[in-house]
Amino acid sequence: MITLSSDFGDYYPAAMRGVLAARSDARLIDVSHAFPRQDIRSSAFWLRELLPYFPPAVHLVVVDPGVGTDRAAIVIRAGEHTLVGPDNGVLVPVARRLDGGSAGETTDSSRFDVFEIVSDDATVGLPWLPVSESTTFDGRDLFAPAAAFVHDRGRGVLERESTFRRLASFVDLTFPGPSVGDGSASGEVLVVDGFGTLITNIPGSVVRDRSAVTVNGEEVTIGRTYASVDPGTGLVTVGSHGHVELAVNQGRGVSRFGLEPGDSVTLEW
Amino acid sequence: MITLSSDFGDYYPAAMRGVLAARSDARLIDVSHAFPRQDIRSSAFWLRELLPYFPPAVHLVVVDPGVGTDRAAIVIRAGEHTLVGPDNGVLVPVARRLDGGSAGETTDSSRFDVFEIVSDDATVGLPWLPVSESTTFDGRDLFAPAAAFVHDRGRGVLERESTFRRLASFVDLTFPGPSVGDGSASGEVLVVDGFGTLITNIPGSVVRDRSAVTVNGEEVTIGRTYASVDPGTGLVTVGSHGHVELAVNQGRGVSRFGLEPGDSVTLEW
Amino acid sequence: MITLSSDFGDYYPAAMRGVLAARSDARLIDVSHAFPRQDIRSSAFWLRELLPYFPPAVHLVVVDPGVGTDRAAIVIRAGEHTLVGPDNGVLVPVARRLDGGSAGETTDSSRFDVFEIVSDDATVGLPWLPVSESTTFDGRDLFAPAAAFVHDRGRGVLERESTFRRLASFVDLTFPGPSVGDGSASGEVLVVDGFGTLITNIPGSVVRDRSAVTVNGEEVTIGRTYASVDPGTGLVTVGSHGHVELAVNQGRGVSRFGLEPGDSVTLEW
Repeated sequence: MITLSSDFGDYYPAAMRGVLAARSDARLIDVSHAFPRQDIRSSAFWLRELLPYFPPAVHLVVVDPGVGTDRAAIVIRAGEHTLVGPDNGVLVPVARRLDGGSAGETTDSSRFDVFEIVSDDATVGLPWLPVSESTTFDGRDLFAPAAAFVHDRGRGVLERESTFRRLASFVDLTFPGPSVGDGSASGEVLVVDGFGTLITNIPGSVVRDRSAVTVNGEEVTIGRTYASVDPGTGLVTVGSHGHVELAVNQGRGVSRFGLEPGDSVTLEW
Repeated sequence: MITLSSDFGDYYPAAMRGVLAARSDARLIDVSHAFPRQDIRSSAFWLRELLPYFPPAVHLVVVDPGVGTDRAAIVIRAGEHTLVGPDNGVLVPVARRLDGGSAGETTDSSRFDVFEIVSDDATVGLPWLPVSESTTFDGRDLFAPAAAFVHDRGRGVLERESTFRRLASFVDLTFPGPSVGDGSASGEVLVVDGFGTLITNIPGSVVRDRSAVTVNGEEVTIGRTYASVDPGTGLVTVGSHGHVELAVNQGRGVSRFGLEPGDSVTLEW
Repeated sequence: MITLSSDFGDYYPAAMRGVLAARSDARLIDVSHAFPRQDIRSSAFWLRELLPYFPPAVHLVVVDPGVGTDRAAIVIRAGEHTLVGPDNGVLVPVARRLDGGSAGETTDSSRFDVFEIVSDDATVGLPWLPVSESTTFDGRDLFAPAAAFVHDRGRGVLERESTFRRLASFVDLTFPGPSVGDGSASGEVLVVDGFGTLITNIPGSVVRDRSAVTVNGEEVTIGRTYASVDPGTGLVTVGSHGHVELAVNQGRGVSRFGLEPGDSVTLEW
């Protein structure tokens, strides 16, 4: 199985699907092609929350603002999973999670392996495929062929030194940790989902068995479900990812709370 | 085969795809994840019009404004098809259709069977999957595992009383019927599609072999095709679902006719 | 393998997926259902750029402003690929490319074969499928069944004269060719992609090894990558399709350059 993730929106993902189908019989499953454009941090969050639900697979990820520059093209072996994409940090949080890390993840990277793609063995064209002189679509011309190659050859191929090279140093990305005390917890907004709900880095356990908290000084109801408050009313709840989130029943938390990714959130009870 | 339908938009459907792929080898086909958000009635319409074109399958449907409340989680056996989702009415119109009902469907529910999921036999986690404390994503944590379970065990498993319980009473949903006379027909707008076309509950047969009708008092051309009128011009036509619809060639009927779902429509000829 | 392309947006593609799955065991892969609505020319461009990356397949294409009129329904045999859709030109540029044509394609059509669907052998309903009286959804009622039929029977079935008829004359569509001189090249904008980048018909080779050109008289940097200029800055680059394109790093070329499809572009160096 090969999954596909990108920030490409329409049209371009089809070229990757075609290349994968031309080179491999792997089952293809789209994760999403609507990641926020060139937003490595949000994409890394969603990958960390979504990919662990898949069975062991090769995950092709193309969120790549530096396409065409000399950033490395990498393959990560994490637990039973394999990740293929650019060396810009987007693959790292999910690599930690897939390798057994939890929400309170460490920055210990000794438990997953990072390889750079150092030859075109993995990507050399099929005779009947178009030859590209493009330098702006590595998803089609480099990462998709590499994902098919690793899928079909098996992960042992990563030890082949003429094609791959083990990297000790790679671009890291970690999400800030929350600070949890006896009567309060502080953290920040990580991302906004498509419902307009603000997802924070504060663990859901801090609001369990409570009925209200203050959010940045203002009292807000805690609900187990969106429907526990009237339509249009704000609430604090625990999202499907286990984090505290700020939502509005049948509305958008991002408008109600006036916060955006990176903003501080303090809960007090 | 398992089909997936929801109002989730982006990102979240991937978690359901992952859970299904982790638990079953079933072929997965997306119906849509762009149903109008939390709109049970429109979603029920589209499911009724789309699912009958599929071969016998398990259909996972998650349009669930009451997620986390005590609304039941149900499985419906309708003809050769199986529907899995919340007990809020969204599954009922298509259940009637799949069980042999027609557009002039009755409310007779004796011909399909509704079961409540009463234990977590169907949803207990796989050892390597994340454990969720969430109460807001039953699509991932309850309905997707249940769909995979029923798919792989076969529908006989619905008789296993420790896991499922036959429900005599469930949340019903019916669409209003039209009133058709000798020189007129009255009904209402059911939904608006993505083209902005107003889809009514009036059967297409009333405009067959005519060239014009009045719509709420104003004369409008009847066209077999959108292209039968000039671009930008309104027309009455018979949509792909067999109902009268109010459209604009290369434009949006919803703007031209000033109507919305629930509004009355009277045709006279 | 059967691929699906349309301008349907949401909901309606699912009916085609269902019909294909009901009639064939072919693997289904979506290309896109977000082609610009009723825009034959842009859709033809994207099909020409995307489908050559697929392995040999049956490609179902429904961009069909003339649905319900007497435009023919056709099947094109081009190289190892088969195209199914309306006779409005949308299939022709990709047919030339799949049959071995290059970017500098000729209008020689002797190398692919066009067949009209002349009987309903290919589309007659399965007993348990809904019977449609619709004339507005040939994607579901005509083209999808025909694609499944040709896929499952093999392309030899195209010679069966009771079902298909070879067409000598069909609706052609060609993209204008550029004019390339010693110090300048003239062409036009073909389409705008989802990133707002203007894609021209001028071959990328004219800007290779240069650092700047004038675009309609104004000097613009040439970049191998978007990231080679500052965010918000315009650049000339070679797109993934091999054409000159006018882009903005992390922005929209269509706003920066004030051009739209059909507008003239002159580069001078």
